[in-house]
Amino acid sequence: MIRVGIVGATGYGGRELLRLLCAHPDVTVSAVASTSAAGKQLTDVLPGFQGLLDITFETFDAKSLAEKCDVVYLGVPGRESMELVAPLIQAGVRVIDLGADFRLKDTAAYQEYYGTTHTQQELLSKSVYGSAPDNRAELKTAQLVAGPGCFPLSVLIPLQPLIPLAKPDIPVVIDSVSGISGAGRTLNQIYHFPEMNENVRAYKIGVHQHTPEIEQELNNEVLVQFNPHVGPYTRGILSTITVRPTASIDFEKCYACYDNEPFVRVLGEDTIPDLNGVTGTNFIDFGWKQDARTGNLIIVSAIDNLVGGTAGMAIQCMNIMFGVDETSGLRLGGMTI
Amino acid sequence: MIRVGIVGATGYGGRELLRLLCAHPDVTVSAVASTSAAGKQLTDVLPGFQGLLDITFETFDAKSLAEKCDVVYLGVPGRESMELVAPLIQAGVRVIDLGADFRLKDTAAYQEYYGTTHTQQELLSKSVYGSAPDNRAELKTAQLVAGPGCFPLSVLIPLQPLIPLAKPDIPVVIDSVSGISGAGRTLNQIYHFPEMNENVRAYKIGVHQHTPEIEQELNNEVLVQFNPHVGPYTRGILSTITVRPTASIDFEKCYACYDNEPFVRVLGEDTIPDLNGVTGTNFIDFGWKQDARTGNLIIVSAIDNLVGGTAGMAIQCMNIMFGVDETSGLRLGGMTI
Amino acid sequence: MIRVGIVGATGYGGRELLRLLCAHPDVTVSAVASTSAAGKQLTDVLPGFQGLLDITFETFDAKSLAEKCDVVYLGVPGRESMELVAPLIQAGVRVIDLGADFRLKDTAAYQEYYGTTHTQQELLSKSVYGSAPDNRAELKTAQLVAGPGCFPLSVLIPLQPLIPLAKPDIPVVIDSVSGISGAGRTLNQIYHFPEMNENVRAYKIGVHQHTPEIEQELNNEVLVQFNPHVGPYTRGILSTITVRPTASIDFEKCYACYDNEPFVRVLGEDTIPDLNGVTGTNFIDFGWKQDARTGNLIIVSAIDNLVGGTAGMAIQCMNIMFGVDETSGLRLGGMTI
Amino acid sequence: MIRVGIVGATGYGGRELLRLLCAHPDVTVSAVASTSAAGKQLTDVLPGFQGLLDITFETFDAKSLAEKCDVVYLGVPGRESMELVAPLIQAGVRVIDLGADFRLKDTAAYQEYYGTTHTQQELLSKSVYGSAPDNRAELKTAQLVAGPGCFPLSVLIPLQPLIPLAKPDIPVVIDSVSGISGAGRTLNQIYHFPEMNENVRAYKIGVHQHTPEIEQELNNEVLVQFNPHVGPYTRGILSTITVRPTASIDFEKCYACYDNEPFVRVLGEDTIPDLNGVTGTNFIDFGWKQDARTGNLIIVSAIDNLVGGTAGMAIQCMNIMFGVDETSGLRLGGMTI
Repeated sequence: MIRVGIVGATGYGGRELLRLLCAHPDVTVSAVASTSAAGKQLTDVLPGFQGLLDITFETFDAKSLAEKCDVVYLGVPGRESMELVAPLIQAGVRVIDLGADFRLKDTAAYQEYYGTTHTQQELLSKSVYGSAPDNRAELKTAQLVAGPGCFPLSVLIPLQPLIPLAKPDIPVVIDSVSGISGAGRTLNQIYHFPEMNENVRAYKIGVHQHTPEIEQELNNEVLVQFNPHVGPYTRGILSTITVRPTASIDFEKCYACYDNEPFVRVLGEDTIPDLNGVTGTNFIDFGWKQDARTGNLIIVSAIDNLVGGTAGMAIQCMNIMFGVDETSGLRLGGMTI
Repeated sequence: MIRVGIVGATGYGGRELLRLLCAHPDVTVSAVASTSAAGKQLTDVLPGFQGLLDITFETFDAKSLAEKCDVVYLGVPGRESMELVAPLIQAGVRVIDLGADFRLKDTAAYQEYYGTTHTQQELLSKSVYGSAPDNRAELKTAQLVAGPGCFPLSVLIPLQPLIPLAKPDIPVVIDSVSGISGAGRTLNQIYHFPEMNENVRAYKIGVHQHTPEIEQELNNEVLVQFNPHVGPYTRGILSTITVRPTASIDFEKCYACYDNEPFVRVLGEDTIPDLNGVTGTNFIDFGWKQDARTGNLIIVSAIDNLVGGTAGMAIQCMNIMFGVDETSGLRLGGMTI
Repeated sequence: MIRVGIVGATGYGGRELLRLLCAHPDVTVSAVASTSAAGKQLTDVLPGFQGLLDITFETFDAKSLAEKCDVVYLGVPGRESMELVAPLIQAGVRVIDLGADFRLKDTAAYQEYYGTTHTQQELLSKSVYGSAPDNRAELKTAQLVAGPGCFPLSVLIPLQPLIPLAKPDIPVVIDSVSGISGAGRTLNQIYHFPEMNENVRAYKIGVHQHTPEIEQELNNEVLVQFNPHVGPYTRGILSTITVRPTASIDFEKCYACYDNEPFVRVLGEDTIPDLNGVTGTNFIDFGWKQDARTGNLIIVSAIDNLVGGTAGMAIQCMNIMFGVDETSGLRLGGMTI
Repeated sequence: MIRVGIVGATGYGGRELLRLLCAHPDVTVSAVASTSAAGKQLTDVLPGFQGLLDITFETFDAKSLAEKCDVVYLGVPGRESMELVAPLIQAGVRVIDLGADFRLKDTAAYQEYYGTTHTQQELLSKSVYGSAPDNRAELKTAQLVAGPGCFPLSVLIPLQPLIPLAKPDIPVVIDSVSGISGAGRTLNQIYHFPEMNENVRAYKIGVHQHTPEIEQELNNEVLVQFNPHVGPYTRGILSTITVRPTASIDFEKCYACYDNEPFVRVLGEDTIPDLNGVTGTNFIDFGWKQDARTGNLIIVSAIDNLVGGTAGMAIQCMNIMFGVDETSGLRLGGMTI
């Protein structure tokens, strides 16, 4: 059994992780740590775990966590991970960070998009970007994994194999719609039910922090015009990606890299996914349309932002890190299958 | 491994069952049968199962199913189960029927509420009503299990222990709201998205077929006024139950029967559940309020109609029938935990 | 033209009122007052009114409002109306209060349910409960109108004519489901989109402040068991009302009082309304079912909590008060007609 | 009073038109015609109109309609308008077609996108595209108005003034999300509530029939990559439009044409609209973002597909045709203002 600790389990990402770990056959949840909830029963804070997990929140203590756990997940607010990772790594426990602090290798970009200085450049250089299809080999021995953003995963998996064929001077246009869980639990007038219901919002156009993350993982070979939206539902991202190819594409060859990926479902040309197939699952589904009239290729991908886009992918990384079946705990079908 | 067959997997109940069975560690799905889909790949009909289950629909054949399976689930339309159960039982395989044909012991009530004659009275007398908390002992050896209705489960579990204390001459008032998945996949103008969205509907007041089922399982000791509704969401039933007690109630004693039930969460007085804790789970949550002013007791229960109200309960029954851990495949937390 | 002032237009009730008044052919909006927004353009605070209403918020000043307006609506938080009404009435302007301060004639009940002392008993005795069908004559000359609660209107209109026929010793059971706009604009974790979406909640069972209001307007001849709920949508209340009649009811005679009511649609026996017919309108629709088996009568009513349940009814009262066509500004059909 | 007739009032567009006309102070609904409903009361077919409109469906008869009406709206299925317009025009009544038959001037494009031959080329050449801001002068005397598509209106109004400044060789990328009412009332498994709820779908990418309509009204000066989607809500379109400008743009000058448009709200740079401001209204709101990093201009527009995108715009055209106040019957604020 993999002994798992979680620091910060009360946001949507951390809760989802804990929910999935409860059903994971190769995992024991050994510790949950939280500054605000230390000393409380998990079920006092998150009553939905009654009957699933009987554990008490402890104060964050790197040594204690390293003794009890083989791996520690961090689900803390942005910028806090920077402080917590170093002592954990030093204490000898492997770390998977659900947050954004260790995703961008370029600290200037981090400064620009997150508004704060990166204080852990050495650790940053050792972190592995936690996309299982892209970095499976490095994950096996990674000490620190940076869980990707949900929007980037929805874009990178269909796009990475095609980038050599995209025109470098014309930005790839990415219009994504996310469920509101992507905006987190913090209260905000715009996410008050009556103001988000029956509504769609575009936000942070051109300045969203996932922009440099996407470009980094595309080797900075293209610019991306990332237009994020939220829609009136809880889970799932649909990304519509418009690319101008330089030449005709052999999709079978391009996407052969995913033939044995357990959670990447390449639906093929003219088969466009929706969220029904992925909600509640670790799958990413994508298909595409070639528009001969305009010369564009349009790819549509679907992912559950909390599972395939966050907690499920983080568990898949853990499975790889510890050598258990990569699909363990993740053989879940869509809630509207 | 329990070898499982499913007849009729394309309705919402059957799909959900299949979805849960894919993640069940003690189960192999050995056969799926369907008249309309025979010969087709499961994933041609239900593409969401790509990467989860590689199997082909076969024609219904009782002997063949009995050879391949330890238990067969029926997820067929009402009235069809009557024809299929007899040959399956005769061929020696145990059967769990998700439908309504074997729930009502009173064939006159069946005739009245389902509009057709019951042709299998002998089998009916042997069927076990598939409520794990109520009939655990009988389930161990049951050959035929009648999976309960979703509304009845939401009502019976909180109400059964209290019935001796309810006034017999004043009907118990049950106002339930179900998600639209409870109405099934068949197209209907009233469930077309724009006509059900932002809407709530009452339907079949006083004539819903779950009324006699609830009364039967309350030993016909009280009348129930069952007022069913559907609301603008997919999954979950919230039942608000108004009872006039004859005397003060010792709830701790009454509900002690659930102390060791793995999926019954008795929240207690003044703790009212909502759907967040149960959606996607096999739990039933309930709490209550004593209204001294009116003399009423109001109980509120929450259940996922497709899991705790159908497929999850059916799996729990199977776990009992085959002696595996009763919670196997069912340790799932709420989608909004 | 009726010159109208509004104090407190930023809550959902006040906004809806302003929205409807913009389209009212016999109304000029002469003043909007707000402590927090004084000096700001209305459209700076509520940008949706661009192109509809060009006006600046002023500080509350009773004399000034009385000069500019024939009637002032109050859409302020609970308990604040008590302070504002007296100077307005004294300054000679008629007042329609959307809030709860002048609904309950019994100040002890007000104290119990609203948690504060009523300081304006004299004004209270003069206030008219603003239900047009019930109090049309009094409204014509009313100086102070107490706009009813949204839940009470959904219940009183179908129930008032029947009360002489209900058993007095058995409480009427009222299960209502409201859209989330009924809970107001104030942020609350339980109304954060991802936590209310796909959810139904019961709340304040037995202690909701609309309970004594309903009983008062039923002349305290029956007790009501009021079980309020919120569902995952924005507007509309569906109330399911279970009554035990003492004798058979001549519905045609009972409901003849509504034959000429412009906004009461009596659908009749076995015709059950839903919200589609009323959302965005001033109508209340209701129908009923007699359940011979249980001896109960079940009435279902539908209303838009913000229009027929608040702002629309308040405008209908104003139309009566000022002798214009009672339907003026209110001939609106359902958003899903 | 303008005497109005409607042929085909049972689809969502026709119902919405009728709903708005009931509240229009300068309109009398003189006739409703329908093949399937002839002889029935309107309220038997559309019970939501009880208390609003007392009229009986008649058989379509051009002469009779021309006698009773000053203008006839057509809300019939695609391809049927072609047959109905000629006799109406011949009988001397003006016609506003809500459908698509008279939008495309290029009959080859009509054939390609609608799959049928256009049989009324002469009428087609006389039809006026019913965009009030673009064709106000022609509308005054138009005999036949082709009501625009809802997606095109959301795109054309912000885009038309900018087209001279867009790169002609790089397609404008338009990602639009519409509420499900845009897909009509016809039942379809994908719009069954549980399959569209919590879902987003892309559809008809590159082949949607609104593509040639948009390009025609942009004078065929650019190609558009039109990627339409539907989201889990009833009303409203949010269009996100990515343009590559050839030069810096003087927006104030570009959009000065809308300074006096009553229903075009130019929100300005960095002010991005959402649907709350437009649902239920005839407004189109738009704002934009210049992305210096990518060199793109991103415009976001919001419209109610049934009002500003269909019925409201058709009424605005009628107001212009008959010389009444252009905003008459349309001074409606957003349902979530």
